[in-house]
Amino acid sequence: MIRRRTGRRPGNQDTRGTILTTARETFAEQGYDGASIRQIAASAGVDPALVHHYFGTKEQLFLAVVRPPIDPASLLPTIFAGGIDGIAERMVATFLSVWENPASGTAFRSLLRGAVSHQTTGRLLREFFATQIVRRVIPQMGAHIDPAEVPLRASLVASQLFGLALTRYIVEFEPIASASKETVIAAVAPTIQRYLIGDLSLPTTGPPASYPPS
Amino acid sequence: MIRRRTGRRPGNQDTRGTILTTARETFAEQGYDGASIRQIAASAGVDPALVHHYFGTKEQLFLAVVRPPIDPASLLPTIFAGGIDGIAERMVATFLSVWENPASGTAFRSLLRGAVSHQTTGRLLREFFATQIVRRVIPQMGAHIDPAEVPLRASLVASQLFGLALTRYIVEFEPIASASKETVIAAVAPTIQRYLIGDLSLPTTGPPASYPPS
Repeated sequence: MIRRRTGRRPGNQDTRGTILTTARETFAEQGYDGASIRQIAASAGVDPALVHHYFGTKEQLFLAVVRPPIDPASLLPTIFAGGIDGIAERMVATFLSVWENPASGTAFRSLLRGAVSHQTTGRLLREFFATQIVRRVIPQMGAHIDPAEVPLRASLVASQLFGLALTRYIVEFEPIASASKETVIAAVAPTIQRYLIGDLSLPTTGPPASYPPS
Repeated sequence: MIRRRTGRRPGNQDTRGTILTTARETFAEQGYDGASIRQIAASAGVDPALVHHYFGTKEQLFLAVVRPPIDPASLLPTIFAGGIDGIAERMVATFLSVWENPASGTAFRSLLRGAVSHQTTGRLLREFFATQIVRRVIPQMGAHIDPAEVPLRASLVASQLFGLALTRYIVEFEPIASASKETVIAAVAPTIQRYLIGDLSLPTTGPPASYPPS
């Protein structure tokens, strides 16, 4: 005689979806560092081992939530190849390439639109930027600049690159929307170079820029 | 004996709203220069004189459609006071002030969010930028730089300033979101200065940057 299963099996799509939804809310509310697998499992009403079973580490769960079109870790070796000589040109060229690639470009447009429209998506993008990009760039830049300045420098770079994406690909201001890649790289790379390793001429009074007032 | 009016009176709220809706679509589709009061009136099914009666000139109708939180024309004298010495610092400081003013800041957030989410709003913002800002800045800058470069320079300035708004006020990347005004001005003004009047190191081959390939 065959015994009928009753209720939901552990490991079905609903459980996986519930964990993802709970993880999304938790990462957005607590930040990446503040969130834990244990807490997400408790909120989702499952055992922490099940979360690990489905998604692996906390970082892998975070990436499953954000679903970045491209893992920035895969781009960094190209950007840092050859050290800091020409690093800004390589960074802007890589940025343009991933936005102008049909598949990843569409995904990046959706991600940026979502981050602007929805607070939760915006917070996830912010956590993604801080943990997946800034933390990986710090060890690469450490020899050239004060590590304490890296977060400010990274957010300045983000301000220019996201602004470039906004004006070139989303709102399409002319002539930057249809300028050649070479023109954009020539115009924007010196900005990125200064933000990365140049003199920021920061005011010497007041709290350090990397530890902003609350 | 009093005669009853039948149908809609000319000049009621519906007619005004119909003209605004039609103008919004027409400006977004045809651009500011391509749109005419005559065409908007025809599409709205009213006499052009009625459009002029309600809204005045084409420019006034356009401003009634976009409803900018602040008329950029009112900010330009402050920014250009004293000529180009320190113009970038004044521009960034003014930009931060209008975004950090509670009333206009909220309106600018809505405008930028709308421009990213809705193609029509994005096109109107683009037209607003080209006609209300760039065209007014060109005569002020003419003595210092090649007027043909002004549109590219203006869109580069926009890329940095809108990116700053995005990272500081909307997605709130740290530490740029909570950095002091002085820190942001010190870090960003040299970028704006170069985009306005510096050497852009543009590639010398290919079409001029201000007349991009289609």
